[in-house]
Amino acid sequence: MTARRVADASGPWLSAYQKTRERTETLVKPLSEADQTAQSMPDASPVKWHLAHTSWFFETFVLKPNLPGYSAFDPAFEYLFNSYYNSIGEQFPRAQRGAITRPGAPEVLAYRHHVDKHMTQLLSQSSPELLNRLDSLLPLGLAHEEQHQELLITDLQHLFSINPLYPAVTVPVQAFAPVVALGWWHHPGGLVEIGAPAPGDASDVQVDDSPSFRFDDLPSFRFDDLPSFRFDDLPSFRFDNELPRHQVRLYPFALADRLVTNGEYAAFIDAGGYNDPLHWLSEGWAWRCREQISQPLYWLRRAEQWWQYSLAGLHALDPHAPVRHISLFEAMAYAQWCGCRLATEFEWEHAAARVEPSDSVYDPTILAPQSQSQSADQLYNCLWQWTQSQYQPYPGYRPEAGAVGEYNGKFMSNQFVLRGGSCITPPNHIRASYRNFFPAATRWQFSGIRMAKDD
Amino acid sequence: MTARRVADASGPWLSAYQKTRERTETLVKPLSEADQTAQSMPDASPVKWHLAHTSWFFETFVLKPNLPGYSAFDPAFEYLFNSYYNSIGEQFPRAQRGAITRPGAPEVLAYRHHVDKHMTQLLSQSSPELLNRLDSLLPLGLAHEEQHQELLITDLQHLFSINPLYPAVTVPVQAFAPVVALGWWHHPGGLVEIGAPAPGDASDVQVDDSPSFRFDDLPSFRFDDLPSFRFDDLPSFRFDNELPRHQVRLYPFALADRLVTNGEYAAFIDAGGYNDPLHWLSEGWAWRCREQISQPLYWLRRAEQWWQYSLAGLHALDPHAPVRHISLFEAMAYAQWCGCRLATEFEWEHAAARVEPSDSVYDPTILAPQSQSQSADQLYNCLWQWTQSQYQPYPGYRPEAGAVGEYNGKFMSNQFVLRGGSCITPPNHIRASYRNFFPAATRWQFSGIRMAKDD
Amino acid sequence: MTARRVADASGPWLSAYQKTRERTETLVKPLSEADQTAQSMPDASPVKWHLAHTSWFFETFVLKPNLPGYSAFDPAFEYLFNSYYNSIGEQFPRAQRGAITRPGAPEVLAYRHHVDKHMTQLLSQSSPELLNRLDSLLPLGLAHEEQHQELLITDLQHLFSINPLYPAVTVPVQAFAPVVALGWWHHPGGLVEIGAPAPGDASDVQVDDSPSFRFDDLPSFRFDDLPSFRFDDLPSFRFDNELPRHQVRLYPFALADRLVTNGEYAAFIDAGGYNDPLHWLSEGWAWRCREQISQPLYWLRRAEQWWQYSLAGLHALDPHAPVRHISLFEAMAYAQWCGCRLATEFEWEHAAARVEPSDSVYDPTILAPQSQSQSADQLYNCLWQWTQSQYQPYPGYRPEAGAVGEYNGKFMSNQFVLRGGSCITPPNHIRASYRNFFPAATRWQFSGIRMAKDD
Amino acid sequence: MTARRVADASGPWLSAYQKTRERTETLVKPLSEADQTAQSMPDASPVKWHLAHTSWFFETFVLKPNLPGYSAFDPAFEYLFNSYYNSIGEQFPRAQRGAITRPGAPEVLAYRHHVDKHMTQLLSQSSPELLNRLDSLLPLGLAHEEQHQELLITDLQHLFSINPLYPAVTVPVQAFAPVVALGWWHHPGGLVEIGAPAPGDASDVQVDDSPSFRFDDLPSFRFDDLPSFRFDDLPSFRFDNELPRHQVRLYPFALADRLVTNGEYAAFIDAGGYNDPLHWLSEGWAWRCREQISQPLYWLRRAEQWWQYSLAGLHALDPHAPVRHISLFEAMAYAQWCGCRLATEFEWEHAAARVEPSDSVYDPTILAPQSQSQSADQLYNCLWQWTQSQYQPYPGYRPEAGAVGEYNGKFMSNQFVLRGGSCITPPNHIRASYRNFFPAATRWQFSGIRMAKDD
Repeated sequence: MTARRVADASGPWLSAYQKTRERTETLVKPLSEADQTAQSMPDASPVKWHLAHTSWFFETFVLKPNLPGYSAFDPAFEYLFNSYYNSIGEQFPRAQRGAITRPGAPEVLAYRHHVDKHMTQLLSQSSPELLNRLDSLLPLGLAHEEQHQELLITDLQHLFSINPLYPAVTVPVQAFAPVVALGWWHHPGGLVEIGAPAPGDASDVQVDDSPSFRFDDLPSFRFDDLPSFRFDDLPSFRFDNELPRHQVRLYPFALADRLVTNGEYAAFIDAGGYNDPLHWLSEGWAWRCREQISQPLYWLRRAEQWWQYSLAGLHALDPHAPVRHISLFEAMAYAQWCGCRLATEFEWEHAAARVEPSDSVYDPTILAPQSQSQSADQLYNCLWQWTQSQYQPYPGYRPEAGAVGEYNGKFMSNQFVLRGGSCITPPNHIRASYRNFFPAATRWQFSGIRMAKDD
Repeated sequence: MTARRVADASGPWLSAYQKTRERTETLVKPLSEADQTAQSMPDASPVKWHLAHTSWFFETFVLKPNLPGYSAFDPAFEYLFNSYYNSIGEQFPRAQRGAITRPGAPEVLAYRHHVDKHMTQLLSQSSPELLNRLDSLLPLGLAHEEQHQELLITDLQHLFSINPLYPAVTVPVQAFAPVVALGWWHHPGGLVEIGAPAPGDASDVQVDDSPSFRFDDLPSFRFDDLPSFRFDDLPSFRFDNELPRHQVRLYPFALADRLVTNGEYAAFIDAGGYNDPLHWLSEGWAWRCREQISQPLYWLRRAEQWWQYSLAGLHALDPHAPVRHISLFEAMAYAQWCGCRLATEFEWEHAAARVEPSDSVYDPTILAPQSQSQSADQLYNCLWQWTQSQYQPYPGYRPEAGAVGEYNGKFMSNQFVLRGGSCITPPNHIRASYRNFFPAATRWQFSGIRMAKDD
Repeated sequence: MTARRVADASGPWLSAYQKTRERTETLVKPLSEADQTAQSMPDASPVKWHLAHTSWFFETFVLKPNLPGYSAFDPAFEYLFNSYYNSIGEQFPRAQRGAITRPGAPEVLAYRHHVDKHMTQLLSQSSPELLNRLDSLLPLGLAHEEQHQELLITDLQHLFSINPLYPAVTVPVQAFAPVVALGWWHHPGGLVEIGAPAPGDASDVQVDDSPSFRFDDLPSFRFDDLPSFRFDDLPSFRFDNELPRHQVRLYPFALADRLVTNGEYAAFIDAGGYNDPLHWLSEGWAWRCREQISQPLYWLRRAEQWWQYSLAGLHALDPHAPVRHISLFEAMAYAQWCGCRLATEFEWEHAAARVEPSDSVYDPTILAPQSQSQSADQLYNCLWQWTQSQYQPYPGYRPEAGAVGEYNGKFMSNQFVLRGGSCITPPNHIRASYRNFFPAATRWQFSGIRMAKDD
Repeated sequence: MTARRVADASGPWLSAYQKTRERTETLVKPLSEADQTAQSMPDASPVKWHLAHTSWFFETFVLKPNLPGYSAFDPAFEYLFNSYYNSIGEQFPRAQRGAITRPGAPEVLAYRHHVDKHMTQLLSQSSPELLNRLDSLLPLGLAHEEQHQELLITDLQHLFSINPLYPAVTVPVQAFAPVVALGWWHHPGGLVEIGAPAPGDASDVQVDDSPSFRFDDLPSFRFDDLPSFRFDDLPSFRFDNELPRHQVRLYPFALADRLVTNGEYAAFIDAGGYNDPLHWLSEGWAWRCREQISQPLYWLRRAEQWWQYSLAGLHALDPHAPVRHISLFEAMAYAQWCGCRLATEFEWEHAAARVEPSDSVYDPTILAPQSQSQSADQLYNCLWQWTQSQYQPYPGYRPEAGAVGEYNGKFMSNQFVLRGGSCITPPNHIRASYRNFFPAATRWQFSGIRMAKDD
C-alpha cells in the first residue's frame, strides 16, 4: 500500500482501532475478577493478562516511539506484560502469570483506557508521515489484539473445564442436522501461487483461475458479510510468515467437502483407534501413552454416554457437530485409520483462495460451532484445520525489522500449521494465506479435522 | 474434661466459635477477589480455599452428623473443599486449587455464613448429650480454623512474593534494637514428662519443678494476656499427636536464650556457609544444589545490600531481627557451622513448660515479628523453631477414631518437628506440647533458629 | 580397647583383612565383565564399582596417610571411586557409574591387588604406634567392605531382575515348612540401655538381665558359630551412630516371634490392602499411586499365580517363606491392616540383646533366606526388619573426626532404621546395636516385616 | 530393477551381505565386553545391542518368513532386540538396554553367526522367485546394518565421553591445514527434480544438466572409489522416504563451498552467541538455558584453551577442522549470527546431484574427519549437514507395506533433515537423495554446518 492511501485512512484506522479494542472488552463482560486472574496451565494465560498484554503491545511499539511526551502507565508493566520479546527485555515467567493478582482487573482496565486515550490522540492528529511509519505496526497491533481475543476464549474454556462445577457463560447451541456422506473436491495439481499477495497487487484476494488448476467441483461460495466485523475500508493485512508469495508444485489431490464429525470420530474410538500404535506417529503414540489420552479434550464419559464441556456448560455430545479440540497426533491417527491423510498447507490454501470467508457465523455471545457453519464455509471459519505441513519459512522469508521480528520466525520448529480459522476467530482475521501454528500435542485450541487424499 | 463442664460451656463455645470465625474474615479484609483466588505453588492454597475448607470442616464433621435436617450448602463442595480426608471421599487435585474461580469470593462468604448460622443454631440449643458428643470435635474445628488462619497468611505472603510489584498490605515494623551476646539456659537432664497433660490432670499447664531437673537460669516469664485471643473459659485443647503423656530421658543440654538474627545468619553466608557441603545434611546439600539456594526465602540482593519481602512490602533487611523463612536444612547447616546443634523437641518442650506464652505480640494487622518479641518470650511466639526431631508417634499413640484420625498420624514420615509458634499463630494455639511439622526443605512458614548444645 | 591389645592383634588384623577381601572376590566369581559393569538405577552401583570403591577406601584412609612412599595406583581413581566424601574431593556422578567401562574388570582386580599388597605390607610390619593410629580405621574399613559385600548382591539382583531372561547364578532354596500361628514375646517396659557398649566395658555384648525388664518368653538362642565368618580374636566394632550408649524409656510392648510370610502378605493384597489409602502413610499412598505399586518388588503375576525372581532365577512364590523386598510404606500399611505396628528400633535392640546371632545361615553360594532360618534366629539374620523409628542421632552423638565423619551423620533425614541383618549380611556384621537405614520407599534391600504391638 | 537382474545377482548379494556383516564386527574389535554393554543415555544403545538388533532384523524379516524350517536362535530375543516395530510385538524399554548383561558378548556373537550361517544358506540356494521376494528386504537389511555401523560409533563415543579417563581407541588425526576464505556456489533456482530416481530410470544417479539450472561454479568432483566399500555390482538402494521423485520449485540461492570450522564457531562463542536470544529459535533458546549449553558437545575448556574429546582421546581443538557435534539449534543460531541461513534439503540435494561421493575418506580405524576431507567432497562425507527443512513426507509418499513400513514414516514430526553423510558413514550409504533426520537438540551425531543464503 502507498503512503497516500494510509494517510487518507486515518479515520478508518481510528475506527478500526476502537472497534477492535471494544470487542475485547465485550468478550470479558461475563467474567468475575477471579475468572480473569486464574491460569490453568503454562500454555494458557489469564484473561487479565491478555487484556494487559495487548495494551502493552500498543504502548511499547506504537505509543512510546511515536507519541512525543507519552508517559508509561506503569514502568513495571513493561516486564510484567511482555510475552516473549527478548529485544524489549526480560519477561515475567510465563507459568506464573496466574500469581499476579495485582494489578487487579480495575487497574488493568484503567491501563487499557490510558492506552486507548493516547492511541486516539495519536490517530486523530497524526500526519501522513507518521501514518506512513505506522503502516505495518497499526494493522499488526490490531491483528495481535484479534489473536488474543481468540486466545483468551480458548484459555478461559480450558480454565473452566478444570472446575467440576462446569461453569456456563454462553447459551447452548442448537443440535446439528445429520451430515450427508463425505464428498470430495478434486484438483489435478500443478504449479500454484502460495502466500499473501504482494502489496501492490491489483486484487487483494488473488484467485488462480487457470483452467488446468481447478477444484473440479468446489462451488464458489459467497456469503453476506457482516460489515461490523470486517474493516473493508482498510488495506488487507498479512503477517511476515505469509510472505513472500511464491510458487509451489502440487500433485493431484482431493479435499473432503466437510469436517469430520463427533460421531465419525467416536467410531474411531470404538474401533480401538487409541490402542493401535500403527495408526500413530511415534511421538504421538508416546504422548498418548504418557498422558493416558483416550478421547478428545473436553469429552467425558458418564453412564455410557459421551458428554462435552463447552463455555455453555456440560452437555451431551452432538454426534453431527464437527469434532474439535483435537491434537495433530489424533488428527493424523484418525486420517491414517481412514486410509486418508491431512492436506498440506499449500493444498488447503490453494483450495481456499477460491472461496471468500463469511463472518455470518461469528457470534461473540456463542463461541462454539453452530449448525449453520456445517455448510461448506467450514472451509474457513468453523474450526482450525490441522495440516500435515510443519511450520517452515517460505523461500526468501524475512522477519520484520526490529522487535516485532520476534513475532513469528523464532517459532519455526516443532510446530504444525493449522489453516482456516474458527468460530471464535474474529472474521477480520480470516484469510486463505493465514498460517496458524501449534505444537502437535495441542488440544485446547478450536482445532478439527478435514480429510485429504492423493488423487 | 467432664460432660458437665462442657454442658455449662455452651455459651463459651458459641462465643469462641464466633470469635474464631470472625478473626478469619478480619484477616482477609484487605484482599481483592483476585488475591483470594490465586495459588502460588502446590504446597500453598488460595485464601478463598482456606475460607471454604474451614467451613467444610464444620459442615462435614459437626453439622451433617449432628444437626437434624441440615442441608448441605452445595453438594459439590464436599469434593471441592476436602483437603486430604480419604474417608470422606475423593479430593480435587491440590495443585489446581487456584483454577477454581467459581464459586467466587462472595459465594464462599455466603457458604461461611450458611455454616455459621447453623453452627450458632446448634450451639445455642444443644443438649448436654450433644455437647458431650462434640467434646473433641468442636475444639478440633476451632484449632483447625486457627491453623488455617496462619496458613492463609503464609500462603498469601508467598503469592505476593512472586509479584515483582511486591504488594504491601500491612504496616512496616519498627527497627529491632541490637541484640546482646547469646546466653544459654542450662539443664542437667533426667527423666521428664513429655506430651499434653491427661484430661483429668489437676493443672492444665504442668510444670516439672523437681529440683534436679531445672534450667539453671531460665526466668519464669509472665505476660499480660490479651483476653480477646485466649478462650480462658474453655478447657484446653491438644491434638492426638501430643498424646500420650510419657517419660523421656534427657541428657545435660543448654538452650540459647534468643533466636539467631539476620545479621548472624548473614555472617554464615559471608563465610561461605552455602558453599561447603560439610555443614549440610546430604539431602540438604542436594536440595541446595538442585534449587540453587544461596540465601533465605524472601531475601533479595540489590546494590550489594540485603532486602527482604514481607507483607509490608520490600524493605532493607533488619540485621537485629530474628532470621526467618529458613528450612530445616539451613537451620542445621547454620548450627553445624557454629559448633552447636538444634534442640530435640523434648528438650524444647521441657524448657517451655516453665514459661507461659504471651499473646501480647500477636497483631493481625502486622503479621511479622516485632521488636518487643525479641525478649525471652521468643521461646514461644515469635517464630516456629526447627528441632532436630523427626516427627514420630509417641509411645502408645492412637489416632482419633473416624475420619479425623487422618488429621495427624498419616504424616509421620519425612517431616521434622517445629516447636513454639509464631507472630502469626493465633495465641490460643500456642502451648508447650504443640507439635508442628513440615518437610525439611520447607521455607514459606514463619520458621527460625534457636541454638542448642550438649552440656 | 587399648593400644597394647591392638598391637598384639597385628596377626589377627592381617588375617581378618585378607579373609574379608577374599570373600568379596568370591562373591563375584560367577559374574561376567558385563554383569560387573552395568548399573540398573541411580541407587544401585555396578559390581565393579563396589570392588574398586572398597579398595579406594583403604587406599585413601589407610595407605596414603600411613604407608610412607605409597604411590596411588591411578590418581584418577580418587575421583572415580569416591562415593560421597566431600572432604576428599568431587565425585563422579552416581547415576553414571554404569558408563565407566574402563577401567575394566581386570584393571579393577589389579587395583584391588595393588592395595592388598600394600595393606599386607603395612599390617605385617607396623609398629604399635601405627596400629594404635589405625585403631578405628582398620575395623571401619573391614565393616565398610562387608557393607559393600551385601550391597553388591542387592544391586546385582536388581540388575538381573530387569532382564527378561531372569539370569540364575545361585541354586534354588528348598521349600519352607509351613509356619505355625504367630506367637508374641512380651516386655513390661522400663528404662533400658541402648547403643553399643563403651570400649572399656567388661563384656562386649551387654545383656540386660534385670528381672523387671524381660521378654517373658523369649528363649535364649545359642547357635554354633562358623569360625570362618566371625573374627573372634578381634575387638568388636561399632559405627559412630551406635553411640553413645544411653538410656531409653520403653513402655509395655510385644514382638512377634517370627517374620510375616509371603502367604500372609498375599492375603493383605487379596483383601485390597494396596487400594485403601486408610492403611497408608500419606507419603506412602502418594508413592504407591505414582509408581503404580501393587505387590512386593520381584513378584510377578503369571497365569493367576505369584512368581518371584531371586538370584536363583524365576520360581513359584513360596507361601511359607518370609516376605521380602518390602518398603517401609508397605510394612507399615500391612501392620496397620493387622491392627499392629512396627517395633521401635529401641524395642528391637533391647529384645535382640538377649540373643546371640548365628552365622549358620550365611551361605555366599545361596544368597536367599533358607528354611532353617525360619526359626527364631530370624530375629537377626534372615531379613532386615523395618522399624517405625526414623534415623536420628543418639543424645550426645559425635561423628568421627575427619573425612570418615561423613560416613553416617549426614544421612540423618528422611530415612527409617532397619534392624537385624539378612541372609546376605556377613555374619561378622550383625549385632544388636547395628543401625541400618534407608528411605521409606526402598525395596531392593533384603527387608522384611516383624509385627509389634502395645501391651 | 527386474527379477532377472536380482536372480543373476545372487552372488553379489551374498558377497555384499558378508562384507557388510564383517565390517560391523571389525568396528567392535577394539572393545571390551564392558564397552559393548554400557549405555550412556536413552537415545544411545549399547554396542552389543546394535550387534544383536541388526541380526534380529535379518532373522525377523528375512529368515523367518523365507527359510523353511528356520528355528529362532532364542525366542526371547524377539522382545529383547526389537527396536520399535509395534507390528512385531512389544519392545524391551529402550532406556534400560544397558541393563541387559546377558546374553553376553560371546552369545551375541554366536547369535550373529547363527543368522549369518542361515542367511548364507538362503542366499546361496535361493530361486529367482525367492530373490524377487527379497528384492527390497535384502538391501533394506544391508542399509539398516550400515546405519547401525554408524550409530554404534556415535553411541560409543558418547559413552566414552562421560568417562573422565577419556579412553582412546583410534589414532589421532593430523592437524588440518588452514582454510581459505569461504566461497559460494550460486544457483538461479527453478523447478528441479528431487528424490531418488524411480527404479526403471536409465541412470541410477541422475544429474540435472539443464543449462538454466546450474551451480555456476560448483566443480564436478570425481574421486577414486575404494571398491571394497561400494557394492557396484548391486542395484542402488533408497529408503521409502526418498520417494516419489517429484518436482520442487527452487529460488535463487548460494551454498558455501566448505563447512564452518571450529575457529569460526569459536568466534561465535567469543562474540556472545550463546548469550543473545535474538540469534536463536525460541525452542532452541529454552533448550540452551535449560541444559546450560555454552559450547559444542565434546568441547572442554581447560586452562583457557579449548579441548575436544574424540575416539582418539582428549586433544587440543583444531581451529581449522570443521565444527561438529552441533545441534540444529546451534547451527541455526550460528547462521543467523552470520546473516546467512541453512540450506533447504532440496537446495542441498540438487547441488549434490552434481557431485559423486567419494569413499576415500572413510577409514574404520580413524572415525573422525580428516584433513583431506576438507576439500569439496565435504559436500558429502565429512559431516552430516543440518538443513532448515523439517522432516515431512514427499507428495504421494507411501510407507513400505508390512512391518518395515514403520522404518521411516512414523517419525515425521519434530525432526529436522540432515544431508550428506559423515566420516563414519559407510560409503555405500551415501547418496544425494538420502534423508537423515534427528530432533533439533541432537548433538551426539557427526553433524556440522554449511552456510546458505538467498541470492
